[in-house]
Amino acid sequence: MEKKEFTIEGRNAVIEAFRGGKPIDKLFILDGCQDGPVSTIKREARKRDVLIKYVDKERLDQLSQTGRHQGVIAIAAAYEYARMEDIFELAQKKGEPPFVILLDNLEDPHNLGAILRTANLAGAHGLIIPKNRAVGLTVAVARTSAGAINYTPVVKVTNLVQTIEELKKKGLWFVCADMGGTLMYDLNLTGPIGLVIGNEGEGVGRLVREHCDMTAAIPMKGDIDSLNASVAAGVLSYEIVRQRLLGK
Amino acid sequence: MEKKEFTIEGRNAVIEAFRGGKPIDKLFILDGCQDGPVSTIKREARKRDVLIKYVDKERLDQLSQTGRHQGVIAIAAAYEYARMEDIFELAQKKGEPPFVILLDNLEDPHNLGAILRTANLAGAHGLIIPKNRAVGLTVAVARTSAGAINYTPVVKVTNLVQTIEELKKKGLWFVCADMGGTLMYDLNLTGPIGLVIGNEGEGVGRLVREHCDMTAAIPMKGDIDSLNASVAAGVLSYEIVRQRLLGK
Repeated sequence: MEKKEFTIEGRNAVIEAFRGGKPIDKLFILDGCQDGPVSTIKREARKRDVLIKYVDKERLDQLSQTGRHQGVIAIAAAYEYARMEDIFELAQKKGEPPFVILLDNLEDPHNLGAILRTANLAGAHGLIIPKNRAVGLTVAVARTSAGAINYTPVVKVTNLVQTIEELKKKGLWFVCADMGGTLMYDLNLTGPIGLVIGNEGEGVGRLVREHCDMTAAIPMKGDIDSLNASVAAGVLSYEIVRQRLLGK
Repeated sequence: MEKKEFTIEGRNAVIEAFRGGKPIDKLFILDGCQDGPVSTIKREARKRDVLIKYVDKERLDQLSQTGRHQGVIAIAAAYEYARMEDIFELAQKKGEPPFVILLDNLEDPHNLGAILRTANLAGAHGLIIPKNRAVGLTVAVARTSAGAINYTPVVKVTNLVQTIEELKKKGLWFVCADMGGTLMYDLNLTGPIGLVIGNEGEGVGRLVREHCDMTAAIPMKGDIDSLNASVAAGVLSYEIVRQRLLGK
């Protein structure tokens, strides 16, 4: 993948970057700032011989790409996308049936960041996103992922349908989120699984949906059309977690 | 709840709007204007993180609907807050045990909008938010709620702990989201319930937590600290939905 310098901003994001072993080139800290999280960051930086520069707020504002640096900006190499093998190696290492989340043209970086966070905590072994149109691993995504970007492999693929067919050969079953589907509690989601989450406006595309083995519906008791995409991903991921923990 | 954007014009009117807790989305002030009342308005705006735009007289005249702006125009979003009775009437009408979601100082309008959407679809009968500091029903919240703001009552209260104690007298049990709690599958969440979701950074406050009957933990299988607040609210709300549908 391409190499390019960029910023990691905000205390949690920087701490997680250090803990995740992300190579940090340089660290900018607001002069005089010395609360708990900042002390942790300084300690991590010294452990790794990272150069610390104490600067004023103006300089930080200048460097900031998100406008929300909270007094701390780290300069790091761009996030690298993982290889498909990384996902399967992680599942194997943990001795678990593979669990991947596929995003069909998600557009909002906050949703991607939140889903990455969910993927990490629900024990998914990786995230798969398509190359075209969809949002990629930007600074905003990294920040909203609260560090998950350092742990959970994200693989970029050219064609989601082709990837689904390839992964089926590796034994994965695919379930897509769709209101018209089977109530999620009635599906068996315990085996090797790929969960497909659709675009914010249109849901999962027709072609992708046709290549899935199952369609899962979240119970809808209200008046509006759909959950936020990252919330839907969270609810379905945790139905997988529940079935894996407690059995179907 | 009808939605309409409108202007509040003139110094006293704007000061009164701030003091009355009216949600202000944006503030236009005549460039160079800095007498006493205008300073008061700026201070109130900063306290509430309201965006201030300094403009010339022509722009203000353009925005004005009354022609008497005195150099100050606030843009307000008129969503009405519901009364606590509305929540209980809705539960009674549906013949369901009350299910409310309480937000302990949530700050991000996107999270509030997403949670409002979840509340609607998970069949919660209302949302309760505290008056101070927390985000209110702004235009951004309305937009991300995808229409849920028109269906699900949102009640603003002065003191969350006091509200919890009052609602306990009406038979509600309170469960708060906390990593250190009981695994959510092991709790009985089928009765009249109040689900408390914490602030993005700090979780549920100590005092609020101490007034809850149960503490629910979402299983965490990953490396990072916590789910996004709206995802956590979604996962817990749907555990309540599942238990109500399938029984504990």
